[in-house]
Amino acid sequence: MSRRIITVGRQFGSNGRAIAKLMAAELNLNFYDKELIEMAAQKVGADPEQFAAADEKGANPWLYAGNHVQSYPNHTLPINDVLFNVQCQVIRELANRESCVIVGRAADYVLRDRKDMLNIFIYAPMESRLETIKKRFNIDEKEARSRIRKQDKDRKYYYNYYTDSGWGEMENYFLTIDSSRYGIEQTARILAATVRAVEL
Amino acid sequence: MSRRIITVGRQFGSNGRAIAKLMAAELNLNFYDKELIEMAAQKVGADPEQFAAADEKGANPWLYAGNHVQSYPNHTLPINDVLFNVQCQVIRELANRESCVIVGRAADYVLRDRKDMLNIFIYAPMESRLETIKKRFNIDEKEARSRIRKQDKDRKYYYNYYTDSGWGEMENYFLTIDSSRYGIEQTARILAATVRAVEL
Repeated sequence: MSRRIITVGRQFGSNGRAIAKLMAAELNLNFYDKELIEMAAQKVGADPEQFAAADEKGANPWLYAGNHVQSYPNHTLPINDVLFNVQCQVIRELANRESCVIVGRAADYVLRDRKDMLNIFIYAPMESRLETIKKRFNIDEKEARSRIRKQDKDRKYYYNYYTDSGWGEMENYFLTIDSSRYGIEQTARILAATVRAVEL
Repeated sequence: MSRRIITVGRQFGSNGRAIAKLMAAELNLNFYDKELIEMAAQKVGADPEQFAAADEKGANPWLYAGNHVQSYPNHTLPINDVLFNVQCQVIRELANRESCVIVGRAADYVLRDRKDMLNIFIYAPMESRLETIKKRFNIDEKEARSRIRKQDKDRKYYYNYYTDSGWGEMENYFLTIDSSRYGIEQTARILAATVRAVEL
């Protein structure tokens, strides 16, 4: 298989992360999700936990006065913007170096000019996502619904804040898939077969 | 490959029909598009041309008084409704008989209870659709844009009129794909590989 970068956007509760990880294993590619935060933190000598708290969240304009990375040269940027900028560099370096699977972080937007980038979005019907989140956190339906709303909102805000594109809108992706139809393992195999069939 | 029915929805100008036809050939499955009108007409002894004029259009409520199929027993139904009802029967009979690819006609909705039904939606960015339609009909951009709007509107109205679902909305499909990325032949091959990877 020729060189390719697969970016995966996912609704909260769609099992998109687990599917992307299995797909990466199936394709024998490195997988990057939370790893990107660690890499970004290392790059600028920032605190990984501080970065983790800002992960996939757009900057809060009310916090512009504080919440900065001390070691980062530009002290007027909120930490979310610093994280985004450094993560962009990390993502671009990764894409220059190797084929890989990258989850979230608007990686499809960051890499939009690369012909070897395949952007996939994984979704599922709300009933299915509620079941997944209820089990994952051992919470009731009301709490699950509230977490799904909040997470999707954060991801959408993050994406739309840093890009001029729309998160989770079909037209912005090469391929979108409903993960509830065939479950985690099979959806990963189906996506791996799809990616393999693309000749770049 | 086990039994499966693949339904294909498509934006006008996405080359969805051509892609579905090639995919069917690749999978060695029968392909049904306009053929469904002929089959529906035969079934009730109606005029195929009269049916063709109503193809993928919802009934116009202003025409309820006229525009009926003379030979059809229920003279109070507009032809669009007759066509839809007969086409539903044809589609269900096909699905009971064979694996196949069916384009449009809300077939995914008609067959929504079948576990062996895979519904796919093919789309493309507007710039790409404009180029396709300009070339296909040898018309200018303004005229192409107007035809795309009209056709999509008809398809959407037809689908939403006869179903309780939303045409072209990601959440209603197992898989959606942007056909502009890799063109007709390759998109057909990619979809065939995807469909083959599904174990039902």
